[in-house]
Amino acid sequence: MTRATVDDLEISLPRLRARLDALAELGAIEGGGCARLALTDDDRLGRDLVVSWMRDLGLRIDVDEIGNVVGTWPPERTDAPVMTGSHIDTVATGGRFDGTLGVLAGIEVLETVITSGVELAHPLAVAFFTDEEGSRFAPDMLGSLVFAGGMSLEDGLAVRAVDGALLGEELIRIGYAGPQPCPARPPHAYVELHIEQGPVLEAEAVTIGAVTGVQGISWTELTIIGQSNHAGTTPMSMRHDAGYAAAEVASFVRRLAADMGSPQVATVGRIELHPNLVNVVAARATITVDLRNTDEELVGVAERRLFEFCDELAEREGVSIERRSLARFAPVDFDERVIALVEEIARARGLSTRRLPSGAGHDAQMLARVCPAGMVFVPSVRGISHNPAELTADADLEAGANVLLHVLLRLATDER
Amino acid sequence: MTRATVDDLEISLPRLRARLDALAELGAIEGGGCARLALTDDDRLGRDLVVSWMRDLGLRIDVDEIGNVVGTWPPERTDAPVMTGSHIDTVATGGRFDGTLGVLAGIEVLETVITSGVELAHPLAVAFFTDEEGSRFAPDMLGSLVFAGGMSLEDGLAVRAVDGALLGEELIRIGYAGPQPCPARPPHAYVELHIEQGPVLEAEAVTIGAVTGVQGISWTELTIIGQSNHAGTTPMSMRHDAGYAAAEVASFVRRLAADMGSPQVATVGRIELHPNLVNVVAARATITVDLRNTDEELVGVAERRLFEFCDELAEREGVSIERRSLARFAPVDFDERVIALVEEIARARGLSTRRLPSGAGHDAQMLARVCPAGMVFVPSVRGISHNPAELTADADLEAGANVLLHVLLRLATDER
Repeated sequence: MTRATVDDLEISLPRLRARLDALAELGAIEGGGCARLALTDDDRLGRDLVVSWMRDLGLRIDVDEIGNVVGTWPPERTDAPVMTGSHIDTVATGGRFDGTLGVLAGIEVLETVITSGVELAHPLAVAFFTDEEGSRFAPDMLGSLVFAGGMSLEDGLAVRAVDGALLGEELIRIGYAGPQPCPARPPHAYVELHIEQGPVLEAEAVTIGAVTGVQGISWTELTIIGQSNHAGTTPMSMRHDAGYAAAEVASFVRRLAADMGSPQVATVGRIELHPNLVNVVAARATITVDLRNTDEELVGVAERRLFEFCDELAEREGVSIERRSLARFAPVDFDERVIALVEEIARARGLSTRRLPSGAGHDAQMLARVCPAGMVFVPSVRGISHNPAELTADADLEAGANVLLHVLLRLATDER
Repeated sequence: MTRATVDDLEISLPRLRARLDALAELGAIEGGGCARLALTDDDRLGRDLVVSWMRDLGLRIDVDEIGNVVGTWPPERTDAPVMTGSHIDTVATGGRFDGTLGVLAGIEVLETVITSGVELAHPLAVAFFTDEEGSRFAPDMLGSLVFAGGMSLEDGLAVRAVDGALLGEELIRIGYAGPQPCPARPPHAYVELHIEQGPVLEAEAVTIGAVTGVQGISWTELTIIGQSNHAGTTPMSMRHDAGYAAAEVASFVRRLAADMGSPQVATVGRIELHPNLVNVVAARATITVDLRNTDEELVGVAERRLFEFCDELAEREGVSIERRSLARFAPVDFDERVIALVEEIARARGLSTRRLPSGAGHDAQMLARVCPAGMVFVPSVRGISHNPAELTADADLEAGANVLLHVLLRLATDER
């Protein structure tokens, strides 16, 4: 097969769509979405279906001790593969593309490659990782984290679900406690296709995102204690209003993000007041602050400025503000060679492309600990995700899967 | 009996305390508070006890069609009385002074007057009104509102409780659907003793508040519709964050109150976000704004400025903000002669006094529709009310009841 012939290979959109639709029927919810929380019976059904497709293609199927599943071609090859993948678990009100696109596009890429008979310098593998969403078992990206050695197998198996179940027991129950050891042997490289889950590509009419890395995340819960008072009888000067203090924090983080500029983002997504009554000055407020930046130093700057503001606010309003860290991840940089390759392949196929960081976490960031890694983003209609209305246009699914095909082929046919 | 002898009369604190303590045992809750929601079995027990005390004093007891109870001395007099009173229903987590002090101090005043044999130009009456708190049946101050003709009897009887019960049926069930017609014949005058439920008197070390009126109230519920988005993947410039908009409103009303100056108060006591998650830009926020001022025109100014701010905010953030009025009461001015009399009596007894408006609603504001009315406030420790920790010092209870005694005596012995 000539290089030119290889470059002409294309995935089959109807096959990809058929698999996306079939998987979406498992754990289907109203509005066209899915609920396949990690290691539930619906997740098991999804896993079984995806494994059956891998088996039909003749892949070797390896299940590891944390339940990650890897299908490899050619099945007899045991050297480090060029890997793709993602996850098939969803949030409780998930869409049909988040994660599943990466896994099913990976299967489609392998079917295309196998059918074409291209000769590979490195084996190709497609994986789905356990509990990427973290909705049932915290933290998120747990399977790929254990795969990459970022969490011990013992700790992973001992995680309790929000419903009280033990991760290790649930793995056994659904038949996905495999024999392959964790941490796993590092792949040769890892590239993941995913929907953007944000509005940037659509807004700029760009088809292919060459993902530069994953933002660092700081989640802080603030508990503000003021004093409950009658809203009619308490002069403004004598108030210690926890609700007002909460509002000031939410207003501040918007100013903070504006002041620091893109890519800094800052969000107060949760506010709870007590007693939460129209005519009572709130005694207590619990709020969360989500700060993200691609630069680790700037995540620290944002945190420091937030905390300084809270200290000043507490002093000024006569309230106390307690802080609790809910999550803290340093930013991840993807491999420059992979990023440039995504751009090159996209341009070669006449597709518009831009570099952008990922605002959300992905399995690829865990794989980046152990091998050259990168991601391909395709547009999300209106940026909507974690929602049954999640949508990516067929043309974009096809374009993304073709870019994934050729990025993987380039890496797998390169002798290095 | 000479005028000097009359001026020397004093209420008995031990008797007043004993009745306060006995009533507080009915519907007692943890922490020393009370739960006697209007027209419940516990409210019936409270009513029966208070009526038994009225009966023991030889008062004529009249129950009206909305369940208000009036005890009159001398029992044979049917001309318009100088009336005092308040309510004995409580909120679900009430204290032992709110309302009950006014009723039981009234009974104590009548016992003192009856025992002394003072000759009265006008009869004296003590009343307790149905459903002042409004916690079970909306609106609050319902009994005195119907008494004063501000709501028809039919409408009052047809009010449904939060638990589904019908007010008229509950009145019959507990035996307090009386024969006296509503609206009632107006009293000669009405003066009510109440705890301040705010921090002003304590902060200024003043014992007696001469209440000038009741603030006007505007309650507005705002429903802010934005767009749910991923907190990591959505650039700040592309957000329509209902949570941020809610925070901006809460910050604005603080600035509004500061800008308008005392007595304007403004409170956002309730904030609810949806979906209320750490990593999701809120799609929807529901908040309430409580605006109060003693000047009707300024209540309107505050409302207008709030609504203008909301319109600008909606435009700026690309959100929609719907308004719904939850309550709107014009300010009430009490009778200047009563206000001055409260001050005069307090000073004559060597008690510190100041004029102040009431931030909370009271039965007296309904009586002010039909007769000269006023109120006496005594300090609330730390301004705490609607809470089992509600407290007024014994010395202040005694001072307040003595001021009430002499204000009522002055009005009832004056031939006019």
